[in-house]
Amino acid sequence: MTRIVTAAVLVIGNEILSGRTKDANLGYLATELTAIGVRLTEARVVADVPEAIIKAVNELRAQYDHVFTTGGIGPTHDDITAECVARAFGVALIKDPRAVRLLTNHYGEANLTEARLRMAHVPEGATLIDNPVSIAPGFQIGNVFVLAGVPAICRAMFDGLKGRLKTGDKVLSVTVSGYVGEGVIAKGLGELQQRYPQLDIGSYPFFRQGKFGASFVLRGTEAALLRSAAEELRALIRSLGAEPIEGEPQEQGPI
Amino acid sequence: MTRIVTAAVLVIGNEILSGRTKDANLGYLATELTAIGVRLTEARVVADVPEAIIKAVNELRAQYDHVFTTGGIGPTHDDITAECVARAFGVALIKDPRAVRLLTNHYGEANLTEARLRMAHVPEGATLIDNPVSIAPGFQIGNVFVLAGVPAICRAMFDGLKGRLKTGDKVLSVTVSGYVGEGVIAKGLGELQQRYPQLDIGSYPFFRQGKFGASFVLRGTEAALLRSAAEELRALIRSLGAEPIEGEPQEQGPI
Repeated sequence: MTRIVTAAVLVIGNEILSGRTKDANLGYLATELTAIGVRLTEARVVADVPEAIIKAVNELRAQYDHVFTTGGIGPTHDDITAECVARAFGVALIKDPRAVRLLTNHYGEANLTEARLRMAHVPEGATLIDNPVSIAPGFQIGNVFVLAGVPAICRAMFDGLKGRLKTGDKVLSVTVSGYVGEGVIAKGLGELQQRYPQLDIGSYPFFRQGKFGASFVLRGTEAALLRSAAEELRALIRSLGAEPIEGEPQEQGPI
Repeated sequence: MTRIVTAAVLVIGNEILSGRTKDANLGYLATELTAIGVRLTEARVVADVPEAIIKAVNELRAQYDHVFTTGGIGPTHDDITAECVARAFGVALIKDPRAVRLLTNHYGEANLTEARLRMAHVPEGATLIDNPVSIAPGFQIGNVFVLAGVPAICRAMFDGLKGRLKTGDKVLSVTVSGYVGEGVIAKGLGELQQRYPQLDIGSYPFFRQGKFGASFVLRGTEAALLRSAAEELRALIRSLGAEPIEGEPQEQGPI
């Protein structure tokens, strides 16, 4: 039996939806979660609007094993994630003594403004997530992990906690590419997918050096099945007059 | 009265959730929609799983004025967006005669494989969206616009249709930055937000050249209000001993 552990990412922030900021956390978390055996199954981006955040947190935590939020945990008025997560869980927002100590040590008594103290507030029952970059912690409550939006901090927080996550079987993948049109290989590829229902076969077209081709990604938890399907895929590509390329094509060129 | 027109983006594809592909369409659509007066209010990423796609399409089209999907409209077995959108609307998937003609002209009768003909299938009642890059069209049904996932094609499709979209008042923005800690300016910034409830004031910290600072983004539909709030913001930054910088800081340095 395959052990499946799922996750969702919830990106919180007007700046992503207005186009001002290009999100850099989703791709990172996607790659890292896949590597440790957690399946990122859904992601959402919502604005800095309490009702939208609360609804998304509650929908996602009910559906997936882990939920990771990013953004909205700084000291300014637009940082409302902690308050919204507390409301989603129906608990109070409290001042965490350990977080207060961390911030006091970092900023010093005199510089610990009321705004900075906001960053010591977490939902009742939450545990802190270390922030080795700028000290102000994230937190975990239930299956929800609340991380910073600044990419360097988000990554450091995730790297610190990932060893403690419940994980499932890792999804392995093999990529084989070829300069063969998707519309030409589609029939054989669909038949390959039917012969290997345990695998997930994706086709991603590209256009390089004036030629159409595609990368075919086989994904699954059983290495032997992947090897066997990849061998059939290479034969399929050859049967269409092209040469299978292991991985992604390396040539640089206009895509 | 502010005329508000909203939108959601639905990114469809396992490759984004596995981390293989970094999404490039959300940021583009966010910027373009903002520029024409449509407020991108939510975005989701779902896997190539019919139930997940159908549920997301139906939830989003009920909540927002426009929905843009990206991905899953090619010729291979993993391209299931058209079929899922038809199911979401409760209509049949039909072969569109105009799409067949487009594909026949492009590929030629002999090369129009069954797989390529899949790309001529749209939900009954849909209208086609032009694809000037690789011909196979997207489509619109109700308030749902189905675009390709390949960024160059997604952009070309959107650029071709954006002139026909219902739009609202444009959200204008002014950005002022300063080398001042968020925790220091937070109180004054929160008060500024309270004085200008019609505006949306965001604070985005950065760390450059060894110094902490933040960009403050004022957003709203009334230019006069923005100008007045920006003037107060500049005074606030000066009162904290820093120099207001128009826009984002330009110096290159470690962020």
